[in-house]
Amino acid sequence: MLRAMGDTFGHLFRITTFGESHGKGVGVIVDGCPPNLKLSEKDIQPELDRRRPGQSKIVTPRKEADRVEILSGTFEGRTLGTPIAMVVHNRDQRSEAYTEMATKFRPSHADYTYQEKYGIRAWPGGGRTSARETIGRVAAGAIAKKILRERFKVEILSYVQQVQKISAKVDPNKVTMKQIESNIVRCPDEAVAKRMIRLIEKVRKEGNSVGGIVGGVARRVPTGWGDPVFDRLEADLGKAMLSLPASKGFEIGSGFDGVSLTGLEHNDPFRATKGKVRTTSNRSGGVQGGISNGETIYFRVAFKPTATVLREQDTVDIDHKNTKLKARGRHDPCVLPRAVPMVEAMTALVLVDHALRQRAQCG
Amino acid sequence: MLRAMGDTFGHLFRITTFGESHGKGVGVIVDGCPPNLKLSEKDIQPELDRRRPGQSKIVTPRKEADRVEILSGTFEGRTLGTPIAMVVHNRDQRSEAYTEMATKFRPSHADYTYQEKYGIRAWPGGGRTSARETIGRVAAGAIAKKILRERFKVEILSYVQQVQKISAKVDPNKVTMKQIESNIVRCPDEAVAKRMIRLIEKVRKEGNSVGGIVGGVARRVPTGWGDPVFDRLEADLGKAMLSLPASKGFEIGSGFDGVSLTGLEHNDPFRATKGKVRTTSNRSGGVQGGISNGETIYFRVAFKPTATVLREQDTVDIDHKNTKLKARGRHDPCVLPRAVPMVEAMTALVLVDHALRQRAQCG
Amino acid sequence: MLRAMGDTFGHLFRITTFGESHGKGVGVIVDGCPPNLKLSEKDIQPELDRRRPGQSKIVTPRKEADRVEILSGTFEGRTLGTPIAMVVHNRDQRSEAYTEMATKFRPSHADYTYQEKYGIRAWPGGGRTSARETIGRVAAGAIAKKILRERFKVEILSYVQQVQKISAKVDPNKVTMKQIESNIVRCPDEAVAKRMIRLIEKVRKEGNSVGGIVGGVARRVPTGWGDPVFDRLEADLGKAMLSLPASKGFEIGSGFDGVSLTGLEHNDPFRATKGKVRTTSNRSGGVQGGISNGETIYFRVAFKPTATVLREQDTVDIDHKNTKLKARGRHDPCVLPRAVPMVEAMTALVLVDHALRQRAQCG
Amino acid sequence: MLRAMGDTFGHLFRITTFGESHGKGVGVIVDGCPPNLKLSEKDIQPELDRRRPGQSKIVTPRKEADRVEILSGTFEGRTLGTPIAMVVHNRDQRSEAYTEMATKFRPSHADYTYQEKYGIRAWPGGGRTSARETIGRVAAGAIAKKILRERFKVEILSYVQQVQKISAKVDPNKVTMKQIESNIVRCPDEAVAKRMIRLIEKVRKEGNSVGGIVGGVARRVPTGWGDPVFDRLEADLGKAMLSLPASKGFEIGSGFDGVSLTGLEHNDPFRATKGKVRTTSNRSGGVQGGISNGETIYFRVAFKPTATVLREQDTVDIDHKNTKLKARGRHDPCVLPRAVPMVEAMTALVLVDHALRQRAQCG
Repeated sequence: MLRAMGDTFGHLFRITTFGESHGKGVGVIVDGCPPNLKLSEKDIQPELDRRRPGQSKIVTPRKEADRVEILSGTFEGRTLGTPIAMVVHNRDQRSEAYTEMATKFRPSHADYTYQEKYGIRAWPGGGRTSARETIGRVAAGAIAKKILRERFKVEILSYVQQVQKISAKVDPNKVTMKQIESNIVRCPDEAVAKRMIRLIEKVRKEGNSVGGIVGGVARRVPTGWGDPVFDRLEADLGKAMLSLPASKGFEIGSGFDGVSLTGLEHNDPFRATKGKVRTTSNRSGGVQGGISNGETIYFRVAFKPTATVLREQDTVDIDHKNTKLKARGRHDPCVLPRAVPMVEAMTALVLVDHALRQRAQCG
Repeated sequence: MLRAMGDTFGHLFRITTFGESHGKGVGVIVDGCPPNLKLSEKDIQPELDRRRPGQSKIVTPRKEADRVEILSGTFEGRTLGTPIAMVVHNRDQRSEAYTEMATKFRPSHADYTYQEKYGIRAWPGGGRTSARETIGRVAAGAIAKKILRERFKVEILSYVQQVQKISAKVDPNKVTMKQIESNIVRCPDEAVAKRMIRLIEKVRKEGNSVGGIVGGVARRVPTGWGDPVFDRLEADLGKAMLSLPASKGFEIGSGFDGVSLTGLEHNDPFRATKGKVRTTSNRSGGVQGGISNGETIYFRVAFKPTATVLREQDTVDIDHKNTKLKARGRHDPCVLPRAVPMVEAMTALVLVDHALRQRAQCG
Repeated sequence: MLRAMGDTFGHLFRITTFGESHGKGVGVIVDGCPPNLKLSEKDIQPELDRRRPGQSKIVTPRKEADRVEILSGTFEGRTLGTPIAMVVHNRDQRSEAYTEMATKFRPSHADYTYQEKYGIRAWPGGGRTSARETIGRVAAGAIAKKILRERFKVEILSYVQQVQKISAKVDPNKVTMKQIESNIVRCPDEAVAKRMIRLIEKVRKEGNSVGGIVGGVARRVPTGWGDPVFDRLEADLGKAMLSLPASKGFEIGSGFDGVSLTGLEHNDPFRATKGKVRTTSNRSGGVQGGISNGETIYFRVAFKPTATVLREQDTVDIDHKNTKLKARGRHDPCVLPRAVPMVEAMTALVLVDHALRQRAQCG
Repeated sequence: MLRAMGDTFGHLFRITTFGESHGKGVGVIVDGCPPNLKLSEKDIQPELDRRRPGQSKIVTPRKEADRVEILSGTFEGRTLGTPIAMVVHNRDQRSEAYTEMATKFRPSHADYTYQEKYGIRAWPGGGRTSARETIGRVAAGAIAKKILRERFKVEILSYVQQVQKISAKVDPNKVTMKQIESNIVRCPDEAVAKRMIRLIEKVRKEGNSVGGIVGGVARRVPTGWGDPVFDRLEADLGKAMLSLPASKGFEIGSGFDGVSLTGLEHNDPFRATKGKVRTTSNRSGGVQGGISNGETIYFRVAFKPTATVLREQDTVDIDHKNTKLKARGRHDPCVLPRAVPMVEAMTALVLVDHALRQRAQCG
């Protein structure tokens, strides 16, 4: 969104991620962070722990501790207003599990397109196409969330709303972080969560995988964030979410279901109470004309089933010959529990950027 | 997407739109266009005619001719490689029809958020929030489409796939421009189109409105376009579509429905024939890892029902007092037929930018 | 500077210029302007009048009125926060005076490099390489100057300091707009100005040309503007000035002469009076570490002698054959009087951008 | 230049530097590098060795080995087309030498402006304002130089042309790297170099400092690089050079001296030999209309005398009280020998970016 270019995202609060799986490390530079924010690794690590492999029985059992180190941009525990570089060194690298990947393209992965585009790729562990790239995003998002929370009172949450066909009803206005973190699948509805976990365990045993839908929420966003005409808040949120690995769709407010309503049914009437304007419904999803209207922002992101399955599949090799590939090693049968902190991070990055932009133009 | 900032979109092929409804005019500057492309108003006007009001009985009857004038960037009928400025002067401006809008906010429009953000707004006709802003996009998109067609053999199409609950089945690999343009609703399925037209006429008489889904297609995109990690092709397409007025959702390939499949069912196997690699299914939607894989790119965009309805609604005024508003004047009971050229334009703008970027980094 | 790309300049206050000499018109879009600023053509036209041809006997006698029209971005005399498009239609176009230019490259002009780069060029009047392009800059700069003056109390001035070897001593802290505008060469030293005018009239009669040095000043810039490490204020000012036609050098504060001093001689000691910190000298030119320090910012820009001379010169034609060219028509024997408003405009554009950036990050 | 924003420089070949002196490390991410370029630390380290402290008796005796580590972006010794992160860990950190700096602002340094802008600064060693920041630039520049050399046959050189009042005559068309590296001051004129070295040793003993002028050269740049109107090659080079610490001026080709010539004297006549167009003089400095014309590009950069002098000076403290400061510790009596690799790096970064841009738009 904003001023993305390849590996950079954001216009005033800019992040640039780097790193390949099985390279020396992954990380991010955050530029444009306001000065004098209290910040240390303790603010970052908990978010990375929510993202990391091996955190529960339903995610990949890879044992990556993912310890973050802040290399620059802080002094005596506060941000300087200069670039904040953060790095996580790679540890658990069993390249041997992937040797077939050197010559065979995994179906519905990025192996083929990277090889064709660049004429080279770091095949161990998927290299740059690995979800390890999102470590940098989550680390940067932790800073963005902190700024939003401390300086703007904005709260960012996300949760698993659907795994394959098992769906939960979640009220974006009421869901809490405690509910979300109360179970390993990160679905705030405890009963539904249990069914989701059972499903994921089942498909894992089958060497198969499932996808689902993550819900995202931003509460108490003040009226006025978003920058028409191209940097509408929903456009930037959509870009942010669709830049996450495995995402295939984004909808805000009434989304795709809203098309079955008429205008009269869909419109959100305004009502004022003591001069405070609210809408009596929120099919707009907190955004009108690309600008926040003070209501809760909520959206949904579709994630396809993990492309890595431990079953033999048709594919081609680097010489464009037909062949078969059966993935070995460890994999996520369902990315959704680990996608939750990524969705939060990207939401926060979009919003903090717009907070600063609003301050610049209209402050 | 790419390097958008407010009213600018694109990184190497950049457009900046300007203009308010009921101001002097609207338009666009296109910067970064390759030189020596044959170009005149005749290349632009037909696309604007597909977008303009008054083109059929199911769109707004406003009589805007929308004649485009190229002010710069060409010489003797060819592009110079310098900025191409295009302007459409506003003509049919009945501000009086809107006078209530000076003080009352239309529900689910951008009146309230613009007023709150900027402390001022051009209320006649919605000002900058009017769909007239998309004239600049469509004009720029006409150039982008021409470049893609002539220099890269890429074909861009879009069509109305669903109006409220009336849905058509469309094969993205086979649909033709002729089918799409054969009826005023721009749905390639003739029988379904008739039902859609009847529905739109009905809701218009009721002073109500409906939304729907537009499908978008790009065919013969070469392998290798798209710029991970943030400028994945689907992320840039999503941003582009979600920056269009009234859009609420975007999905590519299998999209939201894909979450009900398992990984084994969802993966697209690779097969090579005489060294040419294809996938035997295309749930990826032509994009893998954010990069085109040579298959047809297809996606869907949800448009909410038009917010303008000719019925009394609850709202507030500029002093934050509760009031009622009944829109008068002319309106689109369904934006979808006119959204088709906008979706094509935005698709073309994303793709031509990535074509140039691919040439820059990997050419 | 900042986020320039081809024809766009600025990061938060962005301008994009367009237009060729002898095309339909030239102009600019200003995006990112704060809302609610009083603005009409009356704020812009005086600056264009200072830039326009035919304003005095020492500039080109071309008769261009250069009337500006604001097409968008204002409503009832105030800015909307939306893009402000401004256009000046071209009038006095005697292409016939230039027909030799269709096939012959003028020495030290951009004819050859444009032709080689783009494979095409608008040769009448120099097309995009004409100084008419700066109309857009000066129009945008008028808005920037107004914002700086009204909202930040910052004053921008520039003046002719040297014409060929005739040089004036000017105190950047004291020079006034009235002094500058008191004569047609825009040199605040009246006696020196007279000598400059005589020299320019002499070289004009000879069909020759001269260059010189323009001084630029920004007073009352608050401490804290400038964005290390790449967007140092002097780097952005330098880029801005070196993007002007015919400029060959830029220096700030002590500049090139400063290299003959030792560190002890060159350093600016700090002194505080009632808690207010000042430097007792200002060899830094108002910028330290790329950030304004509250002192007067002053710099100098070298402009080469106009390349157009009415004398026969060796050159080559479009087929790379040796030939001779003698320019006819009207020309500026010295660009400096008209460069003054351009330097002011570019200074203002840099500073207003940094004012907004400072507000965004540290506000 | 191009699309700089704070700590990012470049549009298609983008670098983002990070790091404070006395923090954990400094470094850079390079994004947009073409794939399949052979690259290892061995390509980078020699350039850092030319930049590092302690390399000779005339630079600061600080003992920093400045070993670079490539963290990402390469695989089996070749670039991947993904971000290349490089880090140099800080070692020799004697903060105690600087403790007075915690509360007192060094005259003509950035201590005061950073403190005022950000409300905080990393005072040990100057933090982000230290020349250690340029390590990232030089590392990135090494890659840019390699691309220019191997893929475009372009050669980049720079050298010390003047130290205080001791000046060398250097022919930009003939100077060689061997001449430049033949002595510790990096002046290609051996006799003049000796005088410069003696001067620097003398001022060092006096606890004083001197500045000077660095010349820069780019040879065999093809016709057509540079992107009008704002990203003229000289504008981007000027921005690049003026973003270097201690630089106060930039001039290209005839520069400031050119203003004493008339147009007839200054113009570069074109002559063709066997269809190859050259100019018979090169006062343009290889750039016309902002675009390279195939001649040698040459320019000069003024660097002020080092602000750190080992003598007592008037200054103020963090509470804005008048005080005295006498720097202790180690310092560079003259930055110029170490500025040479920085100037080369920035030149290469500008040119490689324009090479890619030219390929994108006109390739």
